[in-house]
Amino acid sequence: MNNFTFKNPTKLIFGKGQISQITDEINKDTKVMVTYGGGSIKKNGIYDQVMAALKGYDVVEFGGIEANPQYSTLMKAVEIGKKEKIDLLLAVGGGSTIDGTKFIATAINYESDPWEFMLDQSILGSITPVKLATVLTLPATGSEMNCGAVISRKEREEKFAFMHPLNYPQFSVLDPQACYSLPKKQIANGVVDTFVHTLEQYLTYPANGMIQDRFAEGVLLTLKEIGADLLENQTSYDLASNFMLSATMGLNGFIAMGVPEDWATHMIGHELTAIHGLDHGVTLAIVGPSLINVMREEKCAKILQYGERVWGITAGGEQERIDATIAATRSFYEKMGIKTHLSDYGIGSENFATIAGRFESRGWNLGENQSITPAKVMEILEGAL
Amino acid sequence: MNNFTFKNPTKLIFGKGQISQITDEINKDTKVMVTYGGGSIKKNGIYDQVMAALKGYDVVEFGGIEANPQYSTLMKAVEIGKKEKIDLLLAVGGGSTIDGTKFIATAINYESDPWEFMLDQSILGSITPVKLATVLTLPATGSEMNCGAVISRKEREEKFAFMHPLNYPQFSVLDPQACYSLPKKQIANGVVDTFVHTLEQYLTYPANGMIQDRFAEGVLLTLKEIGADLLENQTSYDLASNFMLSATMGLNGFIAMGVPEDWATHMIGHELTAIHGLDHGVTLAIVGPSLINVMREEKCAKILQYGERVWGITAGGEQERIDATIAATRSFYEKMGIKTHLSDYGIGSENFATIAGRFESRGWNLGENQSITPAKVMEILEGAL
Repeated sequence: MNNFTFKNPTKLIFGKGQISQITDEINKDTKVMVTYGGGSIKKNGIYDQVMAALKGYDVVEFGGIEANPQYSTLMKAVEIGKKEKIDLLLAVGGGSTIDGTKFIATAINYESDPWEFMLDQSILGSITPVKLATVLTLPATGSEMNCGAVISRKEREEKFAFMHPLNYPQFSVLDPQACYSLPKKQIANGVVDTFVHTLEQYLTYPANGMIQDRFAEGVLLTLKEIGADLLENQTSYDLASNFMLSATMGLNGFIAMGVPEDWATHMIGHELTAIHGLDHGVTLAIVGPSLINVMREEKCAKILQYGERVWGITAGGEQERIDATIAATRSFYEKMGIKTHLSDYGIGSENFATIAGRFESRGWNLGENQSITPAKVMEILEGAL
Repeated sequence: MNNFTFKNPTKLIFGKGQISQITDEINKDTKVMVTYGGGSIKKNGIYDQVMAALKGYDVVEFGGIEANPQYSTLMKAVEIGKKEKIDLLLAVGGGSTIDGTKFIATAINYESDPWEFMLDQSILGSITPVKLATVLTLPATGSEMNCGAVISRKEREEKFAFMHPLNYPQFSVLDPQACYSLPKKQIANGVVDTFVHTLEQYLTYPANGMIQDRFAEGVLLTLKEIGADLLENQTSYDLASNFMLSATMGLNGFIAMGVPEDWATHMIGHELTAIHGLDHGVTLAIVGPSLINVMREEKCAKILQYGERVWGITAGGEQERIDATIAATRSFYEKMGIKTHLSDYGIGSENFATIAGRFESRGWNLGENQSITPAKVMEILEGAL
């Protein structure tokens, strides 16, 4: 096990009808900016619950944060936030709204152009962001209990992640009933996203993190057990609550304590989103199985462990078991309604060289061993056709 | 899954040689009181490492906190703490030292007799304890990452737990090498204590906490896999690090999120310690298997799940599988070198009525369903002979 430090101060408020609890978490004299996305919270009743809980508070609203939250949109909120002297940002939404709100919180208290701290994150240490909290409506990114965010800037074709230790939400309300009205596609994407987050922190090389492995396998097994059912019965509280908690536990730092991490599937997937506009979850389902296949030698021991403990694959030689494990993973994504080949989306090899070239020009080798070179990226993409 | 709130702000600093990191965690102008137990830290080098890290700080020491920390001992530290205007208490030790330090931290900032808040915990809300941090030397109680403590007062034959949300350690340093010099008996007790902590939060009734069940099983499986090896190879870093992390994860609130809890094994065990002076871990190994046997009907579904997922018991009818699961549990404790019958310690039924009478007079029914009546306590004790 590697040395590590871990601190996660977010208060989870989890369960049925918990949105009303935010009243107890916010001082009465707090000026609150409520941020949200495209307005689905106005249809499913969550907006009304939040506003009822905030009755009597001085509240400003900012809606319209899009998927892959954009710098230009967020800067409008930053301007309002500065003018209105906001004390607390309350993000009501999924990962995009929460990520965007982390950017707003940080940018409000930075006097210069905020894109500077996206490009040079050493600046972040000098910024004390505005406090933020969340009401989660879409389980997937884990942003409700971590300090990271991914922000896009379309006109520059840039999409960067940043982490500020003061961007952990003060509290996050997770009412699983929010899943009841989600489009099936978002549920499928959320399940696959959580599954791949977990694999990125698990499917590397053995590091004697026995507890961390068991916890990661616990998230994977739970998703395996509930995934298909959830698509059919998304108003089952038992299924929705386990889905929601899985997504939070999959990326709140617990399973990453002291173990190596990969994240190459995400890095390659981000490029497919940037170039072809594919959903994030879809890119993971496409890249993931091919990456495991290409990296089967380096990842051998953990693939065999994953196959045995998550999919019950114990018969056959090592290569056979690895093949069966990749097939089981792919089949799980397909059962979630997400096709796992580029050709399923009418995409060929036309941009492979561009993608590999981007990693080449940035000098990036990916993966837990930095052994996924641009040439390996080509191989992974070709295997995903 | 039940509704829950969860917040655990302790910073874990985990790994080889991490004690020196405490320098970075404490401001230079902080007045520190270092608390410890019987002096084993002076033999194993941990005292020297802590003092080297605190060079240049204004430091006061308080040693001699005993197992089952005593009010009379702790009050001496409270007096010094008040006089010296301590800013931070640094507990260097195991659960007893850390628990005792939580009491000291709270009592320093309470003007009246601190036993008042042990008897009436509603008082705690008005107290802001002195900040505390820990350097863990003995994995077992989880006190390094929770806000609870158990304090004894011999002259009144009282032993009470208290929890103050401001008693989470600011940081806890966990260097697994601290296990290298522990007496085997303390390792065995620590493994059994952690195992039973986990069972108390798991072996109840199904509550659709799929993630929590998997995490609890992860701790149990890890202890099962490393327990006997650890007794033989306590200087294996791989074994010691997984043991240390198991103990922390077993009682830091994660596996208890939204699920029922039992704790009857602990409650009955405390009485055996009080009357017969048995080690805490020993009482758990004695009471635990008998309690599962007596409560086999109520706990049936979870015993079968536990048997299958932790011990691989799948053959036979339900009652047979329950018997086999209890036998496997008992055998694990015995392999750790802890005998599991009262008769192994020369104890008979002479005080059973006294123990049951204590619960009777307090009006306490125990367990996740409050169905362990004093009569059931008698049955459990008789089954443990």
